Amino acid sequence: MILAELRTPALVLDRGVLVQNCERMAERMQGHRVRLRPHLKTAKSDRVASIATHGQFGGITVSTLAEARYFADRGYRDILYGVGIAPGKLEEVAALQAEGVKMTLTTDNRETALAAAERAATLDSEFEFLIEVDTGGLRGGVSPESEDLITLGQFINAAPRLTLQGVMTHAGQAYHCRGAQEVAQVAEAERAGVTLAASRLRWAGLRCPVVSAGSTPTAVHAASLMGITEMRPGVYMFYDLDQVGIGSCEIEDIAISVLASVIGHNRRAGRIIIDAGALALSKDLSAGEHLADVGYGMVCPADSMRPTAGLCVADVQQEHGLIGSTNGGEPPYERLPIGSRVRILPNHACITAAAHQRYQVVDGDNAIVDVWDRISGW
Amino acid sequence: MILAELRTPALVLDRGVLVQNCERMAERMQGHRVRLRPHLKTAKSDRVASIATHGQFGGITVSTLAEARYFADRGYRDILYGVGIAPGKLEEVAALQAEGVKMTLTTDNRETALAAAERAATLDSEFEFLIEVDTGGLRGGVSPESEDLITLGQFINAAPRLTLQGVMTHAGQAYHCRGAQEVAQVAEAERAGVTLAASRLRWAGLRCPVVSAGSTPTAVHAASLMGITEMRPGVYMFYDLDQVGIGSCEIEDIAISVLASVIGHNRRAGRIIIDAGALALSKDLSAGEHLADVGYGMVCPADSMRPTAGLCVADVQQEHGLIGSTNGGEPPYERLPIGSRVRILPNHACITAAAHQRYQVVDGDNAIVDVWDRISGW
Repeated sequence: MILAELRTPALVLDRGVLVQNCERMAERMQGHRVRLRPHLKTAKSDRVASIATHGQFGGITVSTLAEARYFADRGYRDILYGVGIAPGKLEEVAALQAEGVKMTLTTDNRETALAAAERAATLDSEFEFLIEVDTGGLRGGVSPESEDLITLGQFINAAPRLTLQGVMTHAGQAYHCRGAQEVAQVAEAERAGVTLAASRLRWAGLRCPVVSAGSTPTAVHAASLMGITEMRPGVYMFYDLDQVGIGSCEIEDIAISVLASVIGHNRRAGRIIIDAGALALSKDLSAGEHLADVGYGMVCPADSMRPTAGLCVADVQQEHGLIGSTNGGEPPYERLPIGSRVRILPNHACITAAAHQRYQVVDGDNAIVDVWDRISGW
Repeated sequence: MILAELRTPALVLDRGVLVQNCERMAERMQGHRVRLRPHLKTAKSDRVASIATHGQFGGITVSTLAEARYFADRGYRDILYGVGIAPGKLEEVAALQAEGVKMTLTTDNRETALAAAERAATLDSEFEFLIEVDTGGLRGGVSPESEDLITLGQFINAAPRLTLQGVMTHAGQAYHCRGAQEVAQVAEAERAGVTLAASRLRWAGLRCPVVSAGSTPTAVHAASLMGITEMRPGVYMFYDLDQVGIGSCEIEDIAISVLASVIGHNRRAGRIIIDAGALALSKDLSAGEHLADVGYGMVCPADSMRPTAGLCVADVQQEHGLIGSTNGGEPPYERLPIGSRVRILPNHACITAAAHQRYQVVDGDNAIVDVWDRISGW
């Protein structure tokens, strides 16, 4: 099978680029003497995980319990669920633990810890927690300077069947930076905040073996990760246009694309119409914060991952993508005849990949060398 | 099982509202003496389709060949694939036809028709076509006044193994209208354009038994559908905030919501954090074109589909939704304690539903009365 024979739209993953991205991140973390706990929310694939964890300690991060179940069923035994646990999910966590999976949970509040202590007794289970710390992302987390951090740590530490394992943070504001210098400042704020939280817990007599941080931008550009024990980047495996805009990678580091077919030319509207739209590409516009004229994705010839200058997916409807010229002129109808194929580089790999059920794997050319499944839903 | 016991996030569908929406649309189309060919791109579910086609002629519309296969396997035998056919998909169409499914295809160009004629011979098959006409949506379609319409009709008519069945259009610009009057104008432009195209084909001596049109807004607000033989609305089964904003329905007509759990309170950021984010809700912001302060969705108590005034999902990350107050004040932390649940009304039902693998079906209260599957992917 070759790309020209695939039913479109299809999610295409270049294995060589993936392997290179994973090796570089592993080397970078080894250089910092920090463990890599890859976040599999982007890839959601066992085959990608096996590349991302090669040579590492085997621990992974997930964003859903469906991912936890999928990876547990495939042999992973050390799983950090990186989203604040909802009390209603504890029974499922206990079931995974009963099968021998070491689950680490996160929370930023006493209500959840109390519910966990109560459920642990009912379920005859135990739960291990990291306290989520807000280092500027303004999503979840207690402030590292707060009294709440200490009282929550003391509460978890004192609660029967709960274990305090440490602290974790995600400096989501790194996604709104541009360039290495800005990201490095956020990375230092992330490091300073999460290590301060760890130090304050330790000063209060609490144990804090795990100091977990990370996003792809901060993992790439941090000058120091001193005091951090593990990093949890995820999108680096695939990269995307948003990461190019932030400055985490170059366009040639992007490992995924959406293969689409040209189904029409609307010359009155100045649009080349493809069969990849809002579902196959997503409505994520994040790269537009950093890059001009990127729309819903950049357009490459089917046999390449080098975008054609001056073209983007200007609009999407459910199953239609509308390719337009970014300078207001005519798109190149002759170079993209009806029935021909293109590859679209996505704005945000995590969101685009989530719409697809499998990866069509290539390795630098047009041959499909493998098909890898992925897990979706909750 | 009740809503409070479901793993979150979950897609909840109220059957009573669904049935009422389907009955009203069926009555409306009967009043116009136009057949209803429901578009199943939104629901992608056999159980929803069986309600939507009750009392109708059984024909359906789909947006992917995966939907065509799913519905064919469940007994549907008259399927319009409403997206311009890519030549690479013709073999799959022929396979469906070989199983006794009457497939109708659409195109707006001679290249595709030529490819179809050639493939029909190779595959020992035949293909039936509607010519797509652009009535202002500026997506696909030839202009109804154009010479291209006639030459394409003549080409299809003359090609061995191809049959010209008629014309179709989708007035996508209706999604950017506000209120019945504006939509009614678009509906009349849609009707006038597609019936002009049909008349011109007939004047040229070509047959044109099918004159197919429709979107939910134009189906709801058209004053006349004279000359149209079938309408293809889809989102009316569920409705959503975008349709409320356009004026197609009221909030109480919305049949779907995303059930989510509160996992944190970030008082520094003024946000209540839930476990439904960019994947569970989508990043579709369409309702914001029409409605103020809707963000990524409106927030209802878990036991209700009546949104709480002054609240919306202000931001999303992959698995996090951030509920905020629309007036800049504090969100009601006490009314939404950690561990409690909310239901989010989506901006765009088609896109939100696509992230979910099943419907948790309720009927006016908290009891889960059924679980319905849905098809995804391509």
